[in-house]
Amino acid sequence: MDEREALRLLASDLPHAGDDAAVVGSTAITTDMLHESTDFPVGTTRYTAGWRSVGASLSDLAATGADPTAAVAAYADQSFVDSELRAFVDGAKTVCASVGADYVGGDLDNHSEFTVTTTAIGEVDQPVSRSGAEPGDLVCVTGTLGRSAAALALFEQGETDRANELFRFPPRIETGRRLAGTATALMDSSDGLARSLHQLAEASDCGFAINRDSVPIDASVETLDLDRWEAGVHFGEDFELVCTVPKAALEAVQTDSPTPLTVIGEVTDAKAGVTVDGDPLADRGYTH
Amino acid sequence: MDEREALRLLASDLPHAGDDAAVVGSTAITTDMLHESTDFPVGTTRYTAGWRSVGASLSDLAATGADPTAAVAAYADQSFVDSELRAFVDGAKTVCASVGADYVGGDLDNHSEFTVTTTAIGEVDQPVSRSGAEPGDLVCVTGTLGRSAAALALFEQGETDRANELFRFPPRIETGRRLAGTATALMDSSDGLARSLHQLAEASDCGFAINRDSVPIDASVETLDLDRWEAGVHFGEDFELVCTVPKAALEAVQTDSPTPLTVIGEVTDAKAGVTVDGDPLADRGYTH
Repeated sequence: MDEREALRLLASDLPHAGDDAAVVGSTAITTDMLHESTDFPVGTTRYTAGWRSVGASLSDLAATGADPTAAVAAYADQSFVDSELRAFVDGAKTVCASVGADYVGGDLDNHSEFTVTTTAIGEVDQPVSRSGAEPGDLVCVTGTLGRSAAALALFEQGETDRANELFRFPPRIETGRRLAGTATALMDSSDGLARSLHQLAEASDCGFAINRDSVPIDASVETLDLDRWEAGVHFGEDFELVCTVPKAALEAVQTDSPTPLTVIGEVTDAKAGVTVDGDPLADRGYTH
Repeated sequence: MDEREALRLLASDLPHAGDDAAVVGSTAITTDMLHESTDFPVGTTRYTAGWRSVGASLSDLAATGADPTAAVAAYADQSFVDSELRAFVDGAKTVCASVGADYVGGDLDNHSEFTVTTTAIGEVDQPVSRSGAEPGDLVCVTGTLGRSAAALALFEQGETDRANELFRFPPRIETGRRLAGTATALMDSSDGLARSLHQLAEASDCGFAINRDSVPIDASVETLDLDRWEAGVHFGEDFELVCTVPKAALEAVQTDSPTPLTVIGEVTDAKAGVTVDGDPLADRGYTH
């Protein structure tokens, strides 16, 4: 059973299992586990690891429209090194501070492999789920896609400074909060745009007609020997927001969002499926 | 650097690093990572693992005087087995329900070893720290100590049913809430009573005079070939509350606590150190 099947199995027991974050009262909570062999390529600094792992949880809050208040991390490694621990905490604190949240520590554990579990909490009045997209709504994405694919290529080439920079993404909290109450469906792109669209389509019982040329691919992808569509749409591990917005609301949201919000297509009915320039978009991406 | 040194190092960066849970506004949050090779002996069911790991985080909330609202878990293993996942969630939900909290899911990850990180959040008006014990206060402990040492011996003997039962401890939420506003210092006994007392003594700048015969050792310890003092006081991994209470407040707290609250000694000044029947108590226990 892979993670996707396991999640589906659990969805019957846990009403929130399908969403980026669970909402209890007015509090949103989300947790993520990352570890070295799958999530932190050789060359990833502990500062970047702290930023990125805590940032992943903050991104899940953004994808619910929540305002983050605090984050914690459980940090495990074979041994604890002073400078590594401090760098991790520094990265975690910096990404939290960038969105007005407090990083308040966590737990330490000895483990066979560098492993981090981060949890973030926040307040949300009008949580946005994945299930409200309506035909005619516009499909939008924040920022640019492909940063993580580019980072991985750069790590492999030993260009660790640029790779680390790309790995430290800004969680789209302000845009997520602005979308709360306006967007009809919302999630983050951490599984890749293609998988995200398929998940939204399934949850909302709709289809999507995407325009290939509208998908914003990060400039870093262009400078590398990468398939830009693969890097931007299927690779995943980018933490942008993917949302559907009623046409009448778009301009106001775009004006208020501190991050560019690009229209990449339109919501269709379910029968039409998820297409790019009229051709089916494969439901293929990153399985965490 | 072991976990204790690492925690000390981080305490300068993170004001909450020394407490069982961090408090942000009126929300308490705590996270713990457990894994198979160190925390789940052969024979531990996934139901017990779910109960115990989520319970450990709930116990941290109890040790702050908080009222738990929700818990999440990141669940990692080499592969996902339907029955194991369901049993884990069932245990997690049951322990949450026992204290009025919602178990709301979490994350799945593929990892070389069964590893669980749990996070719990709760509300707290008057958080109790470790640092307020005053000479003359009474030292108390909830329930009985040594359950986990007994469980481990039973797991080794293959008596897994009894062992699993002992491993599924009740988090002392009600007593923790009653102690909020009354106890001068509070923590849980997960590092062992001896280490807990030394940590409270350091945080409160006090000493403790403990009466050996007053320490409540679990009946299960007596039936096994175990050193009762070692099992109850140094082994750790029990999730009872250790607190200091002003003498005048004791009777009311004991009356209100649904769990027996046993007086095991008195707070002294720091010079006297931590003693049992007048002899120094070794600062030795479980390092997580």
